[in-house]
Amino acid sequence: MADTSWPDCAKSFRGVVLDMCGVLYESGEGDGVAIPGAAEAVRRLRASDLQLRFCTNETQASREEFVAKLRRLGFEISVSEVFSPAPAAVSVLRGRGLRPHLLVYDGVLPEFDGVDKTNPNCVVIGDAAEKFSYQNLNEAFRVLIGLDKPVLFSLGQGRYYKETDGLKLDVGVYMKALEYACDLEAEVIGKPSPMFFQSVLTDMGLQPHEALMIGDDLVNDVGGAQHCGMKGVQVRTGKYRPSDERHPTVTADGTVDDLAQAVDVILNQRGH
Amino acid sequence: MADTSWPDCAKSFRGVVLDMCGVLYESGEGDGVAIPGAAEAVRRLRASDLQLRFCTNETQASREEFVAKLRRLGFEISVSEVFSPAPAAVSVLRGRGLRPHLLVYDGVLPEFDGVDKTNPNCVVIGDAAEKFSYQNLNEAFRVLIGLDKPVLFSLGQGRYYKETDGLKLDVGVYMKALEYACDLEAEVIGKPSPMFFQSVLTDMGLQPHEALMIGDDLVNDVGGAQHCGMKGVQVRTGKYRPSDERHPTVTADGTVDDLAQAVDVILNQRGH
Repeated sequence: MADTSWPDCAKSFRGVVLDMCGVLYESGEGDGVAIPGAAEAVRRLRASDLQLRFCTNETQASREEFVAKLRRLGFEISVSEVFSPAPAAVSVLRGRGLRPHLLVYDGVLPEFDGVDKTNPNCVVIGDAAEKFSYQNLNEAFRVLIGLDKPVLFSLGQGRYYKETDGLKLDVGVYMKALEYACDLEAEVIGKPSPMFFQSVLTDMGLQPHEALMIGDDLVNDVGGAQHCGMKGVQVRTGKYRPSDERHPTVTADGTVDDLAQAVDVILNQRGH
Repeated sequence: MADTSWPDCAKSFRGVVLDMCGVLYESGEGDGVAIPGAAEAVRRLRASDLQLRFCTNETQASREEFVAKLRRLGFEISVSEVFSPAPAAVSVLRGRGLRPHLLVYDGVLPEFDGVDKTNPNCVVIGDAAEKFSYQNLNEAFRVLIGLDKPVLFSLGQGRYYKETDGLKLDVGVYMKALEYACDLEAEVIGKPSPMFFQSVLTDMGLQPHEALMIGDDLVNDVGGAQHCGMKGVQVRTGKYRPSDERHPTVTADGTVDDLAQAVDVILNQRGH
């Protein structure tokens, strides 16, 4: 019988999914900085027999721009390996014949280029930052309240994040605002939605127990992946806090100092 | 034994509390317009042996400005008879030694003139409308998240209201946003908070069963007053909707066409 506890279960993995911000790099001015050893760790995973994907809740840039930034930081990554909420939303919109009113950051608009946005019958919000003006939020509200069956998609549900000039309100805050205004429940696209992790698994052709998620966000990365049946390991970089290791509801399958150490453990178990 | 059903219970009232917008006047361009018969109904109440107070969730103007508008519309009202959330908040702040960071409409700022706002240890939000920018909401959030015991006061908890150019998001929406961002529960000052109705009763020196609330908002006016032990009658003006008369949780003690009809019923019962 296979051992199901980390790191013994590492032998049975067929794929690894990496969160990006806080695992590969720390955000900051300009591109931010690569986390020491992370680029080499990605190269070692790529040289192994494991499949590799990247999974981010980034909604301020298109995947093309985002991947270009990661390449400048020294990572070997291609756009087709990156899963982010905007393209997932586009897929949902197409599947359900929905035409969105968009309240998103300008940088991510290109992801929605091919989508019919005339006469909108739903609203999509992302981390729009300064674009979350009273006027813009009111406009999104009026679209929703004018619909027979209002549908609101939120690209992630984060409360806030840290930038070099301080804490910033994230998309989840405005999701809650519109939920209350319209008395509805938003559909979250991105981590920790199980549907989002499932789309990565489907792309790899793997069952949940065959894949490992590595992230710095205990609830959205680790908890989200576990909820989907995957294993989840937390790194002590990015938004990791020591209190995460005694969280009331989410317990990581393992905790490691950084991505380099996680990859060491995985590849050693597999006899590389 | 006294009859406790409307309109028979009108005999036992010693005071009447009137909501303002939707009962005395309809909002609109400029001052809006007085509802036919409302100014005369106020005069008739004033000539009776009933005490009279006014209770509003208006937070875009000081009571002085607001009363001046009502006088221009033909109503005999003095500032000391008007209960609104901002002065109630000032009283709470003083009582608890709190220094607010304010995110409110400019027009209501004079109400907070005498309040110490240095080194804030709580946040007060009102219907700030266009002042609800991303930057301003973020600033309020940073004050809260930086406090050991964050305290958020919300002047009302409305979802939205109607202006001549369409629906507008109300303060409750931003209350929910900050509640989620900071993982806290706001303290609501204004209708339907029982504390707010109680302050009006205290001012009149009456017990709840001795007072009647007349409003157009079934949940905030009628339900709030009933929750406090008062009777509540709804008028079919302002934001009244026919569906209010089959509301799942709030049933008015009576429903009348307008304030004039309510005053007719009350004074007839009392033998005037």
